[in-house]
Amino acid sequence: MSTALHTDHYELTMLRAALASGAAHRRAVFEVFARRLPGDRRYGVVAGTGRLLDALENFRFGEEELTFLRRRGIIDDRTAEYLSGYRFGGDVHGYPEGECYFPGSPILVVEGTFAETVLLETLVLSILNHDSAIAAAASRMVRAAGSRPLIEMGSRRTHEDAAVAAARAAYICGFASTSNLLAGLRYGVPTTGTSAHAFTLLHDSEADAFRVQVDSLGRSTTLLVDTYDVKTAVRTAIEVAGTDLGMVRIDSGDLAEAAHEVRALLDELGAHRTGIVVTGDLDEHAIAALAAAPVNAYGVGTKLVTGSGAPTAALVYKLVAREDAQGVMRPVAKRSVGKPSRGGRKFAFRAIGPDGIARAEIVTTAPAMPVDQLEALAESPGGERPGRPLLVPLVRKGEIVGREPLDAARERHRRSVAELPPAALHLSPGDTAIPTVFA
Amino acid sequence: MSTALHTDHYELTMLRAALASGAAHRRAVFEVFARRLPGDRRYGVVAGTGRLLDALENFRFGEEELTFLRRRGIIDDRTAEYLSGYRFGGDVHGYPEGECYFPGSPILVVEGTFAETVLLETLVLSILNHDSAIAAAASRMVRAAGSRPLIEMGSRRTHEDAAVAAARAAYICGFASTSNLLAGLRYGVPTTGTSAHAFTLLHDSEADAFRVQVDSLGRSTTLLVDTYDVKTAVRTAIEVAGTDLGMVRIDSGDLAEAAHEVRALLDELGAHRTGIVVTGDLDEHAIAALAAAPVNAYGVGTKLVTGSGAPTAALVYKLVAREDAQGVMRPVAKRSVGKPSRGGRKFAFRAIGPDGIARAEIVTTAPAMPVDQLEALAESPGGERPGRPLLVPLVRKGEIVGREPLDAARERHRRSVAELPPAALHLSPGDTAIPTVFA
Repeated sequence: MSTALHTDHYELTMLRAALASGAAHRRAVFEVFARRLPGDRRYGVVAGTGRLLDALENFRFGEEELTFLRRRGIIDDRTAEYLSGYRFGGDVHGYPEGECYFPGSPILVVEGTFAETVLLETLVLSILNHDSAIAAAASRMVRAAGSRPLIEMGSRRTHEDAAVAAARAAYICGFASTSNLLAGLRYGVPTTGTSAHAFTLLHDSEADAFRVQVDSLGRSTTLLVDTYDVKTAVRTAIEVAGTDLGMVRIDSGDLAEAAHEVRALLDELGAHRTGIVVTGDLDEHAIAALAAAPVNAYGVGTKLVTGSGAPTAALVYKLVAREDAQGVMRPVAKRSVGKPSRGGRKFAFRAIGPDGIARAEIVTTAPAMPVDQLEALAESPGGERPGRPLLVPLVRKGEIVGREPLDAARERHRRSVAELPPAALHLSPGDTAIPTVFA
Repeated sequence: MSTALHTDHYELTMLRAALASGAAHRRAVFEVFARRLPGDRRYGVVAGTGRLLDALENFRFGEEELTFLRRRGIIDDRTAEYLSGYRFGGDVHGYPEGECYFPGSPILVVEGTFAETVLLETLVLSILNHDSAIAAAASRMVRAAGSRPLIEMGSRRTHEDAAVAAARAAYICGFASTSNLLAGLRYGVPTTGTSAHAFTLLHDSEADAFRVQVDSLGRSTTLLVDTYDVKTAVRTAIEVAGTDLGMVRIDSGDLAEAAHEVRALLDELGAHRTGIVVTGDLDEHAIAALAAAPVNAYGVGTKLVTGSGAPTAALVYKLVAREDAQGVMRPVAKRSVGKPSRGGRKFAFRAIGPDGIARAEIVTTAPAMPVDQLEALAESPGGERPGRPLLVPLVRKGEIVGREPLDAARERHRRSVAELPPAALHLSPGDTAIPTVFA
């Protein structure tokens, strides 16, 4: 499947005009960054990079796309000719997937001709804005849940393909599993699920339903106990499955109160090892509020797939440098009110203190690590950990070099968050965890 | 492409258990409805039906899907056997696309065996929840814009495939066009676009950029005038393109103030017919606030594709009736705290007054139109328009019968909103435009 028409109309009219004038062949640098973090969050999380590399590989204009564009009068002969041979041949550097970012962090740097780089704007932003928004929410939920596992189950609350990407992003950020089967097939994310209220309602009694489920899925299954009366259902569940029952699920009511009641009842019935999973409109705040309740796992749906109040990451794709008529690369920046950009190709480093805690995000137009500055910021003159570079090669002369297993991104995210100052984990809106310093 | 794994894991474990017990073959009725409208909106809009019918046609378990499910231990032999021959053979009725709905409206009624109907839950909800959320926001924006056209341009702020569906939903609700090329190819939505700030920055001067654009796209194009200084850019634009220039676009700053200034300047320069399009984080409230400003068109991005604060429609898919052990259909309903459902297969009618204005949404378990009640509600005893049935056949014994051109849904939406009481158009949160009466 070609991804080439996941593109705004104006990318092609710009290309058409620039091909006519010749400016299309000027070398150009576009960067992806966020001016702010939505919801005044403490940190952002890069996600979608792996998906972007897959989509880039399929960014080709075939007969169907070209015929459509010509019939609609969007492109002329010259543009059609250019597009029929289009293959991104430039370089892409980026923050690796799972890495944290802050306002101004150049999380993706795309270099090539104006023609080949401008065309990618829409696709790049769609993928990174969606996946990073979900990741930022997921990461906060994982921190709020502490050592308790989280199950992603929001597929039904978002576009069917966005659901797959959301499950992937949540896994990167530490979710244990997803309900989405396609995320299992396509990305290897562990999937889980047992039964819904419909299954209980299908049977002539709750006991029938529980018996059928346990017979089929075993005693380690999770029985849903809030279709009718929770306490009656818990008693029935233990009668049917015995005290080896894996878990019971509560999906409604006051979850803290219900968890305490169900825990007491399970213990009274001798089912000390039977766990409790709670679901139902949970977000990071609700999860945190349940910390003292006897809950063993959380299922999160709507709030995860909608970014918990911030459904898009506000990332933009801006031209920061291009060749001039004399062939010299020049930094460029727009001066639109409230939406300024900084000219010049960026490099980025995270300054780390001697205690291993991040101090600042250094963004600079110099390719070398500004060691003096990093050391000063890290308060560790002569220290051994002045910082680390954040941009890694993803595409070199059109060849994809940045693929990695999803678990690598998951482990990177764990380390990246662990390195942030403790205030990063506050759920309240506030300052970013570390300042961005433009050097 | 199979859509079968756009499905939650638990649909398959329920199927597996129900196949083992035999309950899978009981006849069942599932309904889609909303308990409330997110954001306390006045009305909801059904969207996604056409996409759902396409997805249903491709809901097949092939070798790749079955191998995955077996390897993961999610299904057993019997379930694999069932799935390999799966083809939905039941009936689906639904509110036609573009129709307005209210809390409790049974917008989709799916009938068949439990096995064949339970499997569709996730896919049905993903599509309807996403598309209807976008449609509800789009409809409010169109009302706020009055006779001025709206351009959908939010692709970059949402998942790349969700973007295509969002453009489609916005068009149903009255948006004039989209920036998304794939929505043009796949659904015939008109597409538009001219240039971005990058195009101006690419050139050595703003005048160069404007000249290249006008040479390529003609004088009827839209020039973007806020890359540097707006007033300078407007003067340059008219110098380059003449007073026949189509439009100028403003994407930053105080849009009302800028529109007034730019209008005055265009008039001073003799460009009386050159229009002004404004873009930049517009939602229905911002659009309404610009009613008195000299604006000719609006471009809407982020807020449209994220549902303007309500990114999902809160639609659920609930079992409302099923066969019992004796083969008799029985209504069923869960009693979960705060999440009750109403048992029985529903029918729905909109009561219309003699003035042509909707009075109530009648939801009943009786297949015949409750004429007495409708007439009473419509305050038109003996009147000619007591109401109209809302459910139409979409699938009959597995055969898709509900396909229609997208423009039919667009026209239906226009009529459906026009029929609502004036308070329906208030943008503030409040009561639904008409009450839902369970008869």
